[in-house]
Amino acid sequence: MAEFLNIVVQLHVTKVKVDNLSRARGLIKEAAAQGAKVVVLPECFNSPYGTGFFPEYAEKIPGESSQVLSEAAKESQVYLVGGSIPEEDDGGKLYNTCPVFGPDGSLVLKHRKIHLFDIDVPGKIRFQESETLSPGSNLSMFDTPYCRVGVGICYDMRFAELAQLYSKKGCQLLVYPGAFNMTTGPAHWELLQRGRAVDNQVYVATASPARDETASYVAWGHSTVVSPWGEVISKAGSEETVVYADIDLQYLANVRQQIPITAQRRSDLYTVNAVQEG
Amino acid sequence: MAEFLNIVVQLHVTKVKVDNLSRARGLIKEAAAQGAKVVVLPECFNSPYGTGFFPEYAEKIPGESSQVLSEAAKESQVYLVGGSIPEEDDGGKLYNTCPVFGPDGSLVLKHRKIHLFDIDVPGKIRFQESETLSPGSNLSMFDTPYCRVGVGICYDMRFAELAQLYSKKGCQLLVYPGAFNMTTGPAHWELLQRGRAVDNQVYVATASPARDETASYVAWGHSTVVSPWGEVISKAGSEETVVYADIDLQYLANVRQQIPITAQRRSDLYTVNAVQEG
Repeated sequence: MAEFLNIVVQLHVTKVKVDNLSRARGLIKEAAAQGAKVVVLPECFNSPYGTGFFPEYAEKIPGESSQVLSEAAKESQVYLVGGSIPEEDDGGKLYNTCPVFGPDGSLVLKHRKIHLFDIDVPGKIRFQESETLSPGSNLSMFDTPYCRVGVGICYDMRFAELAQLYSKKGCQLLVYPGAFNMTTGPAHWELLQRGRAVDNQVYVATASPARDETASYVAWGHSTVVSPWGEVISKAGSEETVVYADIDLQYLANVRQQIPITAQRRSDLYTVNAVQEG
Repeated sequence: MAEFLNIVVQLHVTKVKVDNLSRARGLIKEAAAQGAKVVVLPECFNSPYGTGFFPEYAEKIPGESSQVLSEAAKESQVYLVGGSIPEEDDGGKLYNTCPVFGPDGSLVLKHRKIHLFDIDVPGKIRFQESETLSPGSNLSMFDTPYCRVGVGICYDMRFAELAQLYSKKGCQLLVYPGAFNMTTGPAHWELLQRGRAVDNQVYVATASPARDETASYVAWGHSTVVSPWGEVISKAGSEETVVYADIDLQYLANVRQQIPITAQRRSDLYTVNAVQEG
């Protein structure tokens, strides 16, 4: 049995929640059988992606979906980054939330998407998560026996500050369940991942839903794992699949020693006062 | 005559300083005849790149090379980002310095490379600028009637914080005279430029020396201009050439409106206190 530290599941997401949950559980089991230690599911993996769907599919945490994830983590003995699900809090507010489970089935943390996806590219893609969702107010990281992991969801990846902070706090792997689309996908999905990886010298893993051309929101797919050198080391196509990648901490240490940008940062100068204007 | 806001000159740099200066001047003139308003020269354009060469080629500013650049800017009526030259200050310290001149020939500012290039990739590339150079202590930006420009030199580009600060201060174009090599060039040169561009929604322009396989340090070449959408809009090969690109501020404004990350930043959360640990 090979040992893969990081596994990304590019699930095909349908409108039938119980099907999404049971198929995810099956793929987690399959991944674990291949040697998975950390498994990442896609953004909004239990529900179609769309502001109209969020209220209907939203659940409490704990709730139906997180119960299945907890059992899946435990039966497969993996750290499970549970993609994201529409979450409803006690006050009725909705969030795009990633619950993370340990190999004992316990809820390690939940990350509520901080940066809501509100964009408008005329004639291409308009989406306003803020029509129904509220933003989270915490950054989220967790420890495993293998490495420290920082969590973001999709649009969170566009904000370099998040990755920079995770890196400062010692994260070696950043995971972003995400669902870019047919406009932003080809333009920015891989670029952003490689940028976060090379700027912070960390591994970056993304898990997207498989592409479904019949869905109201068509996901780009192409779940990916990028090395701290900025190289794509594993990448899915557009179909449902599982992506395997080894997180090599010795390699990461080598990269950081070879190009020691962390030690070379001039934090004393990253202030407006240090800017001379010509 | 076309109007190109930004021109990058990929000069072939030799060991003969007066040749480097006169050929640069000729190419600036050629660029201006094509409609250049802002011209960028490569890093270390008047000297071979190497710690052994810096003391020998170093000059005061003003000095021989900056005098030529001043005259070239004035005769061609351009803003001239004078790549970089080895500079010696009154105390005998050496810097890797980019002097910027206005169309009237005046020195607008000089940017001393902040982050010295000290890397060691075993069997590939070892270079320690700090053996002979001292680092600068200022970020540098200047205004033109066309746009606001932030300046970095080569390795400065690896530090996202610099670009983020320039962007916050209103820069629409970042210029990096740079000389990546045959290891870091293919791996990171374009990735870093596209990353800076898409993360900060700015134009990014780099000017490299042409590749010279006989030099002790072989530059990657591939001077490039990237749009705020992260697209390469103009790129040189490895030979001496001039690269033209239009800086379209309306396009830049559109990108910023379509994906409004600047307004969406959660600066309230980019602190270690906001990190929950699982």
